[in-house]
Amino acid sequence: MKSTITAALLSLGMLATPAAAGNLPEGMGPLPTSVPAPADNPTTPERVELGKKLYFEPALSKSGHFSCNSCHNLATWGVDNQRFSIGHKWQRGGRNAPTVLNAAFWSKQFWDGRAPLLEDQAKGPPLNPVEMAMDSEADAVSRLTEAGYTPLFDKVFGKNSLNYDNIAKAIAAFERTLITPNAPFDRFARGEGDIPAAAKRGMKKVAEIGCTSCHAGPLFTSNEFVRFDYGSDHGLKSVTGRKEDDHVFRVQSWRNVAMTAPYFHDGSAATLQEAVATMARVQLGIRLGKRDIDDIVAFLETLTGEMPGITLPVLPRPSGHALPWKE
Amino acid sequence: MKSTITAALLSLGMLATPAAAGNLPEGMGPLPTSVPAPADNPTTPERVELGKKLYFEPALSKSGHFSCNSCHNLATWGVDNQRFSIGHKWQRGGRNAPTVLNAAFWSKQFWDGRAPLLEDQAKGPPLNPVEMAMDSEADAVSRLTEAGYTPLFDKVFGKNSLNYDNIAKAIAAFERTLITPNAPFDRFARGEGDIPAAAKRGMKKVAEIGCTSCHAGPLFTSNEFVRFDYGSDHGLKSVTGRKEDDHVFRVQSWRNVAMTAPYFHDGSAATLQEAVATMARVQLGIRLGKRDIDDIVAFLETLTGEMPGITLPVLPRPSGHALPWKE
Repeated sequence: MKSTITAALLSLGMLATPAAAGNLPEGMGPLPTSVPAPADNPTTPERVELGKKLYFEPALSKSGHFSCNSCHNLATWGVDNQRFSIGHKWQRGGRNAPTVLNAAFWSKQFWDGRAPLLEDQAKGPPLNPVEMAMDSEADAVSRLTEAGYTPLFDKVFGKNSLNYDNIAKAIAAFERTLITPNAPFDRFARGEGDIPAAAKRGMKKVAEIGCTSCHAGPLFTSNEFVRFDYGSDHGLKSVTGRKEDDHVFRVQSWRNVAMTAPYFHDGSAATLQEAVATMARVQLGIRLGKRDIDDIVAFLETLTGEMPGITLPVLPRPSGHALPWKE
Repeated sequence: MKSTITAALLSLGMLATPAAAGNLPEGMGPLPTSVPAPADNPTTPERVELGKKLYFEPALSKSGHFSCNSCHNLATWGVDNQRFSIGHKWQRGGRNAPTVLNAAFWSKQFWDGRAPLLEDQAKGPPLNPVEMAMDSEADAVSRLTEAGYTPLFDKVFGKNSLNYDNIAKAIAAFERTLITPNAPFDRFARGEGDIPAAAKRGMKKVAEIGCTSCHAGPLFTSNEFVRFDYGSDHGLKSVTGRKEDDHVFRVQSWRNVAMTAPYFHDGSAATLQEAVATMARVQLGIRLGKRDIDDIVAFLETLTGEMPGITLPVLPRPSGHALPWKE
């Protein structure tokens, strides 16, 4: 009976095979299949569909040029591969745009972790003057009203529900579907496939030298704040003003990291080799040799999952008249 | 026998019902179902799939920010709803971005018709200094090489085939799938549905006053050059230098026109009402009353078709290193 249950769980991808599990360093495992959502924002198909429209909606930017997808491009693993993203009037942001993929699993959003939920995060960029640069929440709402979103919100959230909170809720619901399962590592962890020998060496190395005390568990992040004393960005201190938060950032996940160059909060590492070497040196006081770096990179490359299939939405537009973009 | 064939053709949507056909002004009819392609660029699924990647590929712009889809956004009917699109370093182009939808049917591309084929058109924007601003064809090829496109081109076009001509061919093949059938007018023309009374009045009016001598046939364009002496843009003369080409533009199609505001080569008409009134006045010497304008707009609104379902591509990216964008 027990083995039947185990076999059933294995077939559902919910357990590692004993063989693979035996080879995995402590805590590692396949990407969770259950995605958390707050009680007041269930991931319903209706919210997801509306959120997808909003995610691709350039009317949420002052100029009518930028959508969420401009910087968190779902054709390129939820990032724009820029060091700092291009924003309103060609301004550059001050931090590298992190991927939106699997962000549903993080308990801290933004590099400084200042927002706990996707619902909070989604409210930021439209109003950020160097990003989408909308003048106010009211302006965002009025844009969407003009574009023709009122009936869509009414249907999903009830009458008179087109407001900034619900815009963020719908976007967050969509983002909770942006999960990338079945990375080579996940298949290996479930005993369904193998990974290269170099990747296996790298997997052991990251556990041995201590990378995985922060990049922990199946998500390869502890979801915690850690000091990374590197560069001029003060991190969490910019939010709290507290000295002990200086250069403190949330731990980034390694999921899909091979596809999201450049690296770090300031995008200063152009290659994964460089990022691995710098992290080992600054965080662990270890100077890694080329072979170890290559092995670790080979392991990180096994963490690239499968992109969800995304059908481009068709956005509502007012029949026969232009929307009032601003310079 | 004859009626059996007619019934069969009707069921295939290839003939207007006698009833509907009797109500249609001369020349009007449903959108063609057969899409032309040049002999050397057949619309194969492989070319289309590669072309879709390239269409969404920001690596074809100097900054890494713009793709074809930035200005010809397939979430918003193949346009960006801007008067003049935002390009490299926030420069503005000098002409309104026309929709890519159904462009496969036009025998002239660009507002001045300077390119006959989509293959020619696709070569323009990546190298236009106010648009995607790549320095040269070679730079575009080298970008795609670094991004990892070589094997994809090899598979579709044969060995050593990643070159600028084939980039344009693949994009054009994808664009030939961007067809919007089954507009309310098409269903009406096939006897499968009705359109509002105002739209029927508008349909008769555009034929009666002569709009359809240029906006002719099922495509609602003659695909010809016509003088539109309006604004400061010299149109075809800028290409040929010939005095007789001054202010000459290709005739735009009315297909999906309600969704592609603002209007004209200079995007100066913010509403379809204004565009209709101006066209009638400048081209036909007619001052239309409000009721006629509203009827014509009601008719134009029946020309909004069905968007093709587009699954967002996943673009190739080099594992673990950044692409070299330029400012």
